[in-house]
Amino acid sequence: MKRVSICGSTGSIGVQALDVVSRFPEQFEVVGLAAGRNVAVLAEQVRRFRPRVVSVASDEAARGLAALVGGAVEILVGDAGSEAVASLPEADFVLAAISGGAGLHSTAAAVRARKPVGLANKESMVLAGELLMGEAARHGVPILPVDSEHSAIFQSLAGHNRPEVRRLILTASGGPLRAVPQAELPEVTPARALKHPNWSMGAKITVDSATLMNKGLEVIEARWLFDVDPRRIDILVHPQSIVHSMVEYIDGSVVAQLGVSDMRGPISYALAWPDRLPLDLPPLDLTRLGQLQFETPDAARFPAFTLAYRALELGGTAPAALSGADEGAVAAFLAGKCRFTDIADLCADVLDAHVPEKVTSIAQALAASDAGRRAVERRVGL
Amino acid sequence: MKRVSICGSTGSIGVQALDVVSRFPEQFEVVGLAAGRNVAVLAEQVRRFRPRVVSVASDEAARGLAALVGGAVEILVGDAGSEAVASLPEADFVLAAISGGAGLHSTAAAVRARKPVGLANKESMVLAGELLMGEAARHGVPILPVDSEHSAIFQSLAGHNRPEVRRLILTASGGPLRAVPQAELPEVTPARALKHPNWSMGAKITVDSATLMNKGLEVIEARWLFDVDPRRIDILVHPQSIVHSMVEYIDGSVVAQLGVSDMRGPISYALAWPDRLPLDLPPLDLTRLGQLQFETPDAARFPAFTLAYRALELGGTAPAALSGADEGAVAAFLAGKCRFTDIADLCADVLDAHVPEKVTSIAQALAASDAGRRAVERRVGL
Repeated sequence: MKRVSICGSTGSIGVQALDVVSRFPEQFEVVGLAAGRNVAVLAEQVRRFRPRVVSVASDEAARGLAALVGGAVEILVGDAGSEAVASLPEADFVLAAISGGAGLHSTAAAVRARKPVGLANKESMVLAGELLMGEAARHGVPILPVDSEHSAIFQSLAGHNRPEVRRLILTASGGPLRAVPQAELPEVTPARALKHPNWSMGAKITVDSATLMNKGLEVIEARWLFDVDPRRIDILVHPQSIVHSMVEYIDGSVVAQLGVSDMRGPISYALAWPDRLPLDLPPLDLTRLGQLQFETPDAARFPAFTLAYRALELGGTAPAALSGADEGAVAAFLAGKCRFTDIADLCADVLDAHVPEKVTSIAQALAASDAGRRAVERRVGL
Repeated sequence: MKRVSICGSTGSIGVQALDVVSRFPEQFEVVGLAAGRNVAVLAEQVRRFRPRVVSVASDEAARGLAALVGGAVEILVGDAGSEAVASLPEADFVLAAISGGAGLHSTAAAVRARKPVGLANKESMVLAGELLMGEAARHGVPILPVDSEHSAIFQSLAGHNRPEVRRLILTASGGPLRAVPQAELPEVTPARALKHPNWSMGAKITVDSATLMNKGLEVIEARWLFDVDPRRIDILVHPQSIVHSMVEYIDGSVVAQLGVSDMRGPISYALAWPDRLPLDLPPLDLTRLGQLQFETPDAARFPAFTLAYRALELGGTAPAALSGADEGAVAAFLAGKCRFTDIADLCADVLDAHVPEKVTSIAQALAASDAGRRAVERRVGL
């Protein structure tokens, strides 16, 4: 029996994780849940999974939840609450799936409490990858990726020798604007940028997928998760999103992980690792699909991903600043305050002006990200 | 320093293995070579690699070799000679790359002498897979596949849990006749059947690739090499031969190995296992290739592969009989004694008439194969 805490339980990843957990009641017990303000869904989860402790974002949400579930569960509040859920003494595994910078607190708390982490919070690695991986290594805590790309790389590294890795190859769907000519990009509307071909995700990550910034941020994640020099991390556009990512070894052999586009795959892999769960997802049928395509990403049309490499080269707080700048720029784009092509330009300006410092605390990383976001907001008048 | 014996050193696999070995002189030393009658090439190999012992097929070849290399090496003869090379006390690894039934002797000798085997001889598994894998397990001897498909499966199983395998998926190029309509198949000439699109191989295996019998025989190999129920081994036609094979796990995740079509990849993987060698093969460039296609194999046009499943169901000596029948039928086709479509029919007839016995010795397996071949030869008047 694995006792799990799920931080971000009412988000897309959290809900799917609970779906997986519910199918294997002999293998998993939910001991803690952390959510934000969606108390209706959280109350339902409390009734169904009976955790000992939950946490919500505010006192108001706590009162709302208490009204729905009464004294059935201990209710905590804020970052301290999600940190407590991430470090419950009885937890054997923590799914860190709170989105955005807020997710760093629970990741850090889980690592410090020596809990194996399933990491779905991209910002933990982008803002503080070196710091958190260093702590995880010192505590002997495994950090298991939940992103489909990083799970694919993790699965393609299993059983092979790390020093023999020549390249990590992150695949990218190319997003909703893959085939749009350069001249049309400045006029792309938020509605058009939000139509992702393969994955149904939130607005921020779907726009990031359209700019390829998402793939750049994943390069930063991969750099820390797998301790690989960024010059050995490549991006390959693969519109079908069937090959989730690959690893090339020194003998030219490439190991890849493939599957249908369903996040329950990577979620369950992290949950059950080192075992697998017999999921009843539709099997991958490559004959029905017919063909798989691969293209080089187009840095002329989608320069955002190149900024991630630049941020890694600058080092320290630079990736945090880039992440924050992107948050601000995407919000500005969605609010009609800038054009699609301005997103990368705004981020590049922030990176140019940034003076990187070594990341020594979560607070500092979050501050660098906030400063990046505010710099963009000032520029666009948000 | 790994000391290797190479059985079948003047064949295609043997020559490529020596090419790999020659690039890593600090890692490999050649202690034994076994060949057939190609004494000119063997003499050159003796001068270059200085093995202690070699073996050739006949006394005449032994005299020819002695005339070329003098007393530089101990020269043995026949099956006893290749068995001795496969079990040299100083050998740490044996590459079993003698083609056809003759290859069983060296595989068996290596296993009995507790030498790790790199297996390029398909017949060892097709004719006597259960017997040899049983002996290898008892002696704790690893048998490492050298076929590109089986090496791909081996690499896709590494680091994952065997009980969690749902399916092995062997890819097949589809061979030179993949797109030929059923009505034209009876008229296919040997010249046309010998034009393989991706791999340059011998005549027998190229025709086997055209009939898909080759893939059937690989199903039998996989069944024993990986101890998987044949109902969980599928064939997928993939004309580009880039995905060398795949493993599907119980969670729907598929792990695949990809690479360029160069046998030095799988050869070097077996040679260096559990490490890899930094080969300078051209890297796999999926963007240059553009797309990968997948199709279900067409049992109506290419029924030969289905016979392999039937032979496994019959069990015992049935796969050996099928293998021998195919040898006879391909020879008959190449000699103009039967049509392309007769190959599968002749094999099916042999299988129908065969009374399987449990395989308890190499000699018995070879006898069953010979009987299958002779039955076909009688039918076609060879």
